[in-house]
Amino acid sequence: MGRLPALSFDPLNIKDFASESNKVIEFITNYYKTVHKYPVRSQVEPGYLQDLYPKTAPFQPTSLETILQEIQTDIIPGITHWQSPNFFAYFPATISNAAFHGEMLCNALNIVGFNWICSPAATELEMIVMDWLGKMFNLPQSFLFEGKGGGVLQGSTSEALVCLLAAARDRALKQYGEESITKLVVYASDQTHFVVKKAAKLVGIPPKNFRVIPTSLATCFALKPNDVKMAIERDLESGLVPLFLCATVGATSSSSVDPVEGLGLLAQKYGLWLHVEAAYAGSAFVCPELRHYLKGIEHADSISMNLHKWLLTNLDCSCMWLKKPSVLLDSLSMTADYMRNEASESKQVVDFMDWQIASGRRFRALKLWLVLRRYGVKNLMTHIRSDVDLAKHFEALVKSDKRFEVVVPVNFSLVCFRLKPNEETEESLKILNWKLMEAVNSSGRAYMTHAVLGDIFVIRCALGTSSTEEKHVNELWNLIQEKTRHILKEKCWNELQFPI
Amino acid sequence: MGRLPALSFDPLNIKDFASESNKVIEFITNYYKTVHKYPVRSQVEPGYLQDLYPKTAPFQPTSLETILQEIQTDIIPGITHWQSPNFFAYFPATISNAAFHGEMLCNALNIVGFNWICSPAATELEMIVMDWLGKMFNLPQSFLFEGKGGGVLQGSTSEALVCLLAAARDRALKQYGEESITKLVVYASDQTHFVVKKAAKLVGIPPKNFRVIPTSLATCFALKPNDVKMAIERDLESGLVPLFLCATVGATSSSSVDPVEGLGLLAQKYGLWLHVEAAYAGSAFVCPELRHYLKGIEHADSISMNLHKWLLTNLDCSCMWLKKPSVLLDSLSMTADYMRNEASESKQVVDFMDWQIASGRRFRALKLWLVLRRYGVKNLMTHIRSDVDLAKHFEALVKSDKRFEVVVPVNFSLVCFRLKPNEETEESLKILNWKLMEAVNSSGRAYMTHAVLGDIFVIRCALGTSSTEEKHVNELWNLIQEKTRHILKEKCWNELQFPI
Repeated sequence: MGRLPALSFDPLNIKDFASESNKVIEFITNYYKTVHKYPVRSQVEPGYLQDLYPKTAPFQPTSLETILQEIQTDIIPGITHWQSPNFFAYFPATISNAAFHGEMLCNALNIVGFNWICSPAATELEMIVMDWLGKMFNLPQSFLFEGKGGGVLQGSTSEALVCLLAAARDRALKQYGEESITKLVVYASDQTHFVVKKAAKLVGIPPKNFRVIPTSLATCFALKPNDVKMAIERDLESGLVPLFLCATVGATSSSSVDPVEGLGLLAQKYGLWLHVEAAYAGSAFVCPELRHYLKGIEHADSISMNLHKWLLTNLDCSCMWLKKPSVLLDSLSMTADYMRNEASESKQVVDFMDWQIASGRRFRALKLWLVLRRYGVKNLMTHIRSDVDLAKHFEALVKSDKRFEVVVPVNFSLVCFRLKPNEETEESLKILNWKLMEAVNSSGRAYMTHAVLGDIFVIRCALGTSSTEEKHVNELWNLIQEKTRHILKEKCWNELQFPI
Repeated sequence: MGRLPALSFDPLNIKDFASESNKVIEFITNYYKTVHKYPVRSQVEPGYLQDLYPKTAPFQPTSLETILQEIQTDIIPGITHWQSPNFFAYFPATISNAAFHGEMLCNALNIVGFNWICSPAATELEMIVMDWLGKMFNLPQSFLFEGKGGGVLQGSTSEALVCLLAAARDRALKQYGEESITKLVVYASDQTHFVVKKAAKLVGIPPKNFRVIPTSLATCFALKPNDVKMAIERDLESGLVPLFLCATVGATSSSSVDPVEGLGLLAQKYGLWLHVEAAYAGSAFVCPELRHYLKGIEHADSISMNLHKWLLTNLDCSCMWLKKPSVLLDSLSMTADYMRNEASESKQVVDFMDWQIASGRRFRALKLWLVLRRYGVKNLMTHIRSDVDLAKHFEALVKSDKRFEVVVPVNFSLVCFRLKPNEETEESLKILNWKLMEAVNSSGRAYMTHAVLGDIFVIRCALGTSSTEEKHVNELWNLIQEKTRHILKEKCWNELQFPI
C-alpha cells in the first residue's frame, strides 16, 4: 500500500511560502505607492476581460511571477481603486496594516469556527472583542455578554438583518400563528438602505407590508416618530401586525440620523422590535463628542454596524449586538448528530453558528483584535476625528463658493453638496450636477457618487480612505472648480437628458 | 484651514508594511512547521481566554511583536488545528499558497464589488472563473454564463440556499398568491445537512412543511425517489404546494449520494425546483472517474459546492450555479438612487449584489483564479486523487482488522467505520465507539468526529488536509489500535452512559 506519486503536488508548499509571500508583499507595496496615479473609477468597457481571457481553465500551471504580471496588466485597469486617496464615492472601505496582518493570520490558521470546540479561542476572542467594542462605543450594558446580551461578527449588515428579522418574525408567529406571516409589517424611512427591504422580503414578509415612511429636508431627512405612529395606527386598524422598526443612524444617502429615543419609546409602546442600523456611522461612536447621535439607544433591541467601512478592518467585519440572544437562538439554533459535542451540550459555551445564517465562519475576531490592540482606542479616536476634520474642511471649501450649496448638515464625514449657480429648476440642477460629477469621475482624478434627497440631486463626497490627506481634498476641490468652469461655459447643458 | 495633528496616526503605514508583513510571514511559516506537534483538538476549558484578558479595549497601542507573542502563548492553545496533518474531523478546510496569496491580494485591493462599476475586473473575473469551473466539473452548458445560466461566489452554502429558496418561493407566490407561503413544502433526506432546513425556515417556509425523508443502510443512506414521490403525493392531496427538493451528493454524515437523475425526473414531473447540494464532494468532479455521482445533473435547477472544503481555496469560497438567473433576480434584485450608474442601467453588465443576500462583496474570484492558474486542472486532479487514495488506504487498514467494520462505501475521501468486536447491541457499540473516539481525540495526536447513520454510531475519518500524508494515516491507525487495546481491556465500558 505504498503512496501513489500523487504527492508530487504540494499545495501547502512551506519551502517556497516565505519567498513567494515576499513577492506578493512587494507587489502590494508597489500598488500602494502608485495607487494615486491610477484613474480612480475604472475606465474599461463592459466585457473587456472576457475578451482577453481564454474560455476554459488552464490544464498546466503558471508561475506566480506571470500571474502577478497579469494582475498588473489585465486586472488593475479593471479595478475601481477604493484605496486611492482620491476615492470619495459610496463610503470608504478603510484598511490598515493591523487588519491586513489579521487577515493573513486568519487565513493561515484557516479554522472553521461553527462551534466552540472547533477552536475555542475563536469563539472566546469574539466574545471578548464584542464586549470591548460595545464598551468602546458606550453601548448599554444590556447589549454586552457581561449584561446578558451579546454581539457577533458577520460578513454584512444584510446577514444581520435577515437573522434579526427572522427572530422577530418567529417570536410573532409563535404568538399569532404561522398564517400571520402575511400580516407582519416592517417600518423604515425613504432614506433607509434598501438592504432592509431586501432582508424583510428574504424572510418572507410580503413586500407590500414594507412601509417606506417619507422624510424631507425639514427634518434633514430624519424620520418623524409621529409619522411612524400614524402608519402603525393605520396598520393596526387594518388588522395587520406591526413587527419591526428600523432606525438609521448615518444613512447612506445623506448620513441623516433618525431619532432613536423617540422611535424607541414608540417601539416600546406598540411592541415593535427596534433595530438601529449604523453601518457607516457606528465606528464614529468611539468618540464621545459624536455619541449624542445614539441618544436613546437603550430603547433599541439590536444595533448593527460595518467596521469594514470606517474602522480600518478591511472587508469584511460587520457587527451586530442584541439584548436578547435567546430570541435569536429560538429562531436560528439547529444542529445535527455530526456536530454534537460535550461542550455544546453542557450549555457552558456559545456556538456562534446559532447567531448567523451559515454554519462555517472565519476567525474574523482575530483581525478585529489586532486592530484594537495595535492601535488602541486612542488612535481609533484620532482616526475618526481626522476624517471628520477633513469633511469639515471640504464643507468649508464648498461654502466659500457662492455657486455651491451644502444641502444637509455634515454629521460625520460625508458632505452632500451641489452646484446651484442660478435659480434653476430641480430637474435642470439634477442634469447640471450629474454632468459635473461625471466630468470629475471621467477625468480619473477623483471619484464621487450621488444621491437623490427628496427631489434634490446631490453629489456625495465621502471622506476618509486610509490614505486621503488634506492635499487630496484640496486637489478635489480644484478639480471641481475646473470642471465647473468648463460646464458653465457650455450653453446647452440644461437641454440634456438625464442619463439614468 | 491647516490640517489638525490628527495625521500623526497612519493606519496604512507603507513604510513599515513590508517589514511587518515579513514578521507575520515568519510567524506563519513557523506555525506550519510545528502544527503537527500541537494537540489537534484544543484542550482548553470553557472560559480560558476570558480569564486571561482584560474587560475593556486598550487605550494605548501595542507592538506587533508583543501581539504575535500573545497569539503564540494565548491563542494557539485555544486553536483546534484544522491545518494539522492529523486533523481528520468534519471535512478538511484545505489551503494552498495560491489561495493564501489570493487572499492577500484581495485584502490589499479591498474593493467592495456590489456592482460592475465598483470594479469591473471583479465581476468579469468572477464570470470567467465560474464558467471555467463549470466546464472543469463538466456541468451542463445551461449552468454557464455562456449558456444563459450563471454562477456566483458566496461565503457559504447557507447563503446560496437562502437565495435559491427565496427565488423558488417568490416564483410560487406569484402563481399561487402570497397567502400560500404557509403551504409551500421542501423535501430532503435525513442525511441532508441541517443548513437546508435552516435556510427554508429563514425564508419563511413553516418548519412543519420541511419533509425529512428517511433513508437506510439498504441504499447506503441515499434518497429513494419513490419515497419522495409518495411524500409529494400526500402533500398534494392535503392541498399543499411542493416547492423544492434538495439532493445531496456527498452528505456530511457519510458522503452518501442521492440519485440526481431519478430525483430530477421526479422534480420535473411535479414542477419542483431541484437543487444539488455538493458542498464537500463538488470539488471531486474535476476528476472524470468520479463524475458518475453527478449523473442526471442536467435535470437540476441549481447546484452548490464549497471549494473551501476540498479545492485548496481557504475559507471562504462557496460556489452556486443556476440555469435561470432571471428567477433569482426577480426575487433579489433591488437598488437605490445612490447605486444607480450607466453601466447597470444599460443592462450590459452583471451586478452580483443581485445574486446574493448582501450588497457588499469581497473580490473572492481573484483567489479562485490564482488557484486555477497556479495549479492548473492537472494538479487539482492530482490533489483530489491523492486524497481518494489516502481514504482507500485507510479503508484497507480498517478492513484488515476483523474487529472493525467499514459501515458505508467510501465514495470520496471519507471513511465511516466502527469498532465492532462482538455481537454487541447498537447502544453499547455507540458507547464503545464514542469512548474510542474520545480516547483518540483527547490524546491530542489526532482528531476525528462522528455521525449517527440510522441507529449506527460511526467514527468519521475525513482524509485530505493540505499536509496529510500516508505516514499520518498510518500513525492514526496505530493510535486507533493502541486505544482499542486499552478500551477492550477495561471491563465496564458498556455500562457507561452515552455522554451527549
